[in-house]
Amino acid sequence: MKQQQVLIQMTIRAWDGEVAKADQYIFDLPDEKWYSEVSPGRNRAIYLIGHLTASNDSLFEILGVGQRLYPELEAAFIRNPDRSGLDMPDPGIIKTHWFKVHEGLRYSFLTISDEEWFGRHMAMTDEDFAMEPMRNKLNVLMSRTRHLAYHLGQLKLIQ
Amino acid sequence: MKQQQVLIQMTIRAWDGEVAKADQYIFDLPDEKWYSEVSPGRNRAIYLIGHLTASNDSLFEILGVGQRLYPELEAAFIRNPDRSGLDMPDPGIIKTHWFKVHEGLRYSFLTISDEEWFGRHMAMTDEDFAMEPMRNKLNVLMSRTRHLAYHLGQLKLIQ
Repeated sequence: MKQQQVLIQMTIRAWDGEVAKADQYIFDLPDEKWYSEVSPGRNRAIYLIGHLTASNDSLFEILGVGQRLYPELEAAFIRNPDRSGLDMPDPGIIKTHWFKVHEGLRYSFLTISDEEWFGRHMAMTDEDFAMEPMRNKLNVLMSRTRHLAYHLGQLKLIQ
Repeated sequence: MKQQQVLIQMTIRAWDGEVAKADQYIFDLPDEKWYSEVSPGRNRAIYLIGHLTASNDSLFEILGVGQRLYPELEAAFIRNPDRSGLDMPDPGIIKTHWFKVHEGLRYSFLTISDEEWFGRHMAMTDEDFAMEPMRNKLNVLMSRTRHLAYHLGQLKLIQ
């Protein structure tokens, strides 16, 4: 296997691993716990799961493989903090959205060629990319994988 | 820049980014907060910072660039949970250890060649590596970077 492919596989495998942990967590979380805080006065599980769903949903556009599925999540889960007073979907709906987003992303990764993974992501210009070739699509996926790990660490505190 | 080098730079840059966030966090944390729990009944900051220090200290050996600096941390921070009754160093000592470990690692990365980053890590055999070339040194660093992000997410909950 070429090193380029090894690298792509490593990165996708890491993503899959964190998503699988989150899948299990979300699947197992009883409905009433969605409204628990990860620590007193801090975000509730529903906000963090909605935040991760909305944040990862934006990957379709950043990676250039499609459009966001649920742009309506952005207001309550990205642009505003928890308890903003904005409506949030029920846990059952967010759960379905979570699985649809990650199933769609997993499928869309198959359409990205090895060369494209090393190409610029859609939120930067060709000029910037020429100066900073690290800021490619693969790097975006790595960064989102860490973002997922960061919030999973918090979600795991709910008992 | 070759794609191989781009990938190595991406991975080291991600590591540096998470370590820099942790440096700042540890530097800013007042001594008395080291004994706060991240959530009621959960790990205390001192345990998580000691755990990350000991865990990252083991990278010298896993990456094949040297020996652990503080093997004595393993009992209280890796092999046992928080409040095991084992002695823990004071926050000031752990802080110094943290900075020494990460300064040493950063320096040792410079001695790893591009080819070596794609070689097997020291905790696996040549035979296993032939079947799973993703399990290289770079992958170990990526995985430790996510581990760091995971616990930083928890540490950030201390107020």
